Amino acid sequence: MTDQRDLASLRAEIDKLDDELIALLKKRQALVQEASVCKSAHKDAAYSQAREAFLLHDRAQKAAAAGLPPGLIEDLLRRLLRESYKGVGPSAYACLKPSDRPLVIVGGRGAMGKLFASYFERSGYKVAIIDANDWDKSPAILAQALAVFISVPIACTKEVIAKVAPLLPPDCVLCDFTSVKAPMVQSMLEHYSGPVLGLHPMFGPDIRSMVKQVIVCVGGRNEEQGKFILEQFAQWGANVCKCSPQAHDQAMSIIQALRHFTTYCYGRFLSEIAPDLKEILALSSPIYRLELEMVGRLFAQDPKLYADIIMSSQQNIDLIAQYLQTLQPEFALISARDKAAFKRNFEQTRAYFGDYAAKFLRDSGALLAKVQDERVGT
Amino acid sequence: MTDQRDLASLRAEIDKLDDELIALLKKRQALVQEASVCKSAHKDAAYSQAREAFLLHDRAQKAAAAGLPPGLIEDLLRRLLRESYKGVGPSAYACLKPSDRPLVIVGGRGAMGKLFASYFERSGYKVAIIDANDWDKSPAILAQALAVFISVPIACTKEVIAKVAPLLPPDCVLCDFTSVKAPMVQSMLEHYSGPVLGLHPMFGPDIRSMVKQVIVCVGGRNEEQGKFILEQFAQWGANVCKCSPQAHDQAMSIIQALRHFTTYCYGRFLSEIAPDLKEILALSSPIYRLELEMVGRLFAQDPKLYADIIMSSQQNIDLIAQYLQTLQPEFALISARDKAAFKRNFEQTRAYFGDYAAKFLRDSGALLAKVQDERVGT
Repeated sequence: MTDQRDLASLRAEIDKLDDELIALLKKRQALVQEASVCKSAHKDAAYSQAREAFLLHDRAQKAAAAGLPPGLIEDLLRRLLRESYKGVGPSAYACLKPSDRPLVIVGGRGAMGKLFASYFERSGYKVAIIDANDWDKSPAILAQALAVFISVPIACTKEVIAKVAPLLPPDCVLCDFTSVKAPMVQSMLEHYSGPVLGLHPMFGPDIRSMVKQVIVCVGGRNEEQGKFILEQFAQWGANVCKCSPQAHDQAMSIIQALRHFTTYCYGRFLSEIAPDLKEILALSSPIYRLELEMVGRLFAQDPKLYADIIMSSQQNIDLIAQYLQTLQPEFALISARDKAAFKRNFEQTRAYFGDYAAKFLRDSGALLAKVQDERVGT
Repeated sequence: MTDQRDLASLRAEIDKLDDELIALLKKRQALVQEASVCKSAHKDAAYSQAREAFLLHDRAQKAAAAGLPPGLIEDLLRRLLRESYKGVGPSAYACLKPSDRPLVIVGGRGAMGKLFASYFERSGYKVAIIDANDWDKSPAILAQALAVFISVPIACTKEVIAKVAPLLPPDCVLCDFTSVKAPMVQSMLEHYSGPVLGLHPMFGPDIRSMVKQVIVCVGGRNEEQGKFILEQFAQWGANVCKCSPQAHDQAMSIIQALRHFTTYCYGRFLSEIAPDLKEILALSSPIYRLELEMVGRLFAQDPKLYADIIMSSQQNIDLIAQYLQTLQPEFALISARDKAAFKRNFEQTRAYFGDYAAKFLRDSGALLAKVQDERVGT
């Protein structure tokens, strides 16, 4: 009985310690909030790589000295940092180009348009939104525009560019957010003679914070005049990544079109053979559970979005065709149970991944441990 | 200047608070360690679902009352709980069937064999290991065995079963760890007339803790006599999941063989078109980064393991063939840019996923936020 009481009393002590933990987190949250207001007043960016790196390194050293297990304090801090990046309140961002002229978001009532409208507003810009049904009042708004962001579905982007471009003042920066860049930038350059900036935010509208999110910039014309826009993104904590429209589009054929196609096909096939998902999940290791989640999440979203992305260019379709042609030889090898050939191919591929293979194994291992954390045991 | 000093002093306060946090975690770790010793003395399992559920619910309520953001304390606690599950030290597990007779692991010098040997030893069992090169002393060991676990590569499992079975005492429980169950269980039943248990640990030897890991049990013969083994697994915190050998094998064709094949083919294709991985990663959203990690991690591992798994049965190869046949019609649809047909197929698949689609979107969203946490910004 003594020991049993001991477990109960130990648990009571843990409970008390967790109360202290919550109180400490609350104090920390208040300090972080104060710091973000302070940073905003000084027009410091929402995110500082140096501060994050210092925090992680400093706490890791102290935690190691205290005998805590490796990686623990870093994981906890990263999770806390996420909250502090989210925690920056309304109008907390510095405005890098104060102006009476509005930033105009065409398609601003879509989820992506709304997200950027909110960020620009919280940075002290005047934001005007134009949607399909308020076209009649748009000429007056566009004539004043400091910059215009075309944020409409891919299928109608060119048409909207053609409609908007003639109405802009000559120094307005014309931007688009489409996931295909070469044809859109070309279309903007053709219809407009002022500054042009092709942009592609590499995230969906459901993000909780702009910190560390990637926004690709492929340039266009007189990019100097659009510089304040990129600096404003950086102010929010985003990573602005520059490349050519062609390099962007080629990467997106791989990153988006091919990947979405294979995920879609795998999900389709599952629905045809229709295994019991509950049973499959019960039998799953963390890695398969994660992979199944990545497939299933696609089908919770808008089919139009995926159709648009996959079918947005002939380049995408050609790449998918090229991929499909490689499958039969691989299958022939499996079917012949040719383990030696499989090993050869496998090792060639490993050579291509180089140091990334081991890095990916390590990084994904850390992530799979987190999948396991979420699991409820029996 | 006042404000600038303010930011510095706020950061100093945060630093101090983090020192307190580390001290608190250290105290918590010591208490958890004491509790685990205490639990071990009482033969309590390493993992208690009720305690975990209580902790998460209780702390979430307190954190909400304190005004902390939703989800934060749960994420922090899950990460702490992982450490406490790992933290159970040597010989800390209760032994559910004390005996002078050894548990024998055939192939016990392989990584998986070593893992189970270590767990059984820390639970107070006598463990004997038989490897290829100590076959001459094995008859004496096997004649004493309380249970035998065949933990050798799939390709030689049947041969080893045939060799081991005649040497066992009639009440010994014969088990295997192979990832193909129907033929292995059949082979054990044919070669041995005593208790048989087909097992499949759904994890690799690199796990940090057995807590919440799945071990599939497909039964065999006189399962009652092997019950202590399953209870011992549960004592370590593992989830024992029972199903028929056939249901297991069908699920594994999908979970392992097909998935590994598609991942392998995608990696192979990438290595052929050979995009610059550094550039691809820079342009990647968290979801693609994660997907690329899941592909690359495969190639950091042993090709033999994957060849064995994919080519382990005709059932696997037939399933892969069936999958490949579905790709051409899907491609035809993409190629014709038939968005209506795509939408129809998409929605059929969504119906198959049912409530899981939204759940997967939610769960993976939480995980993708963690991928983003790890990212270094600019």
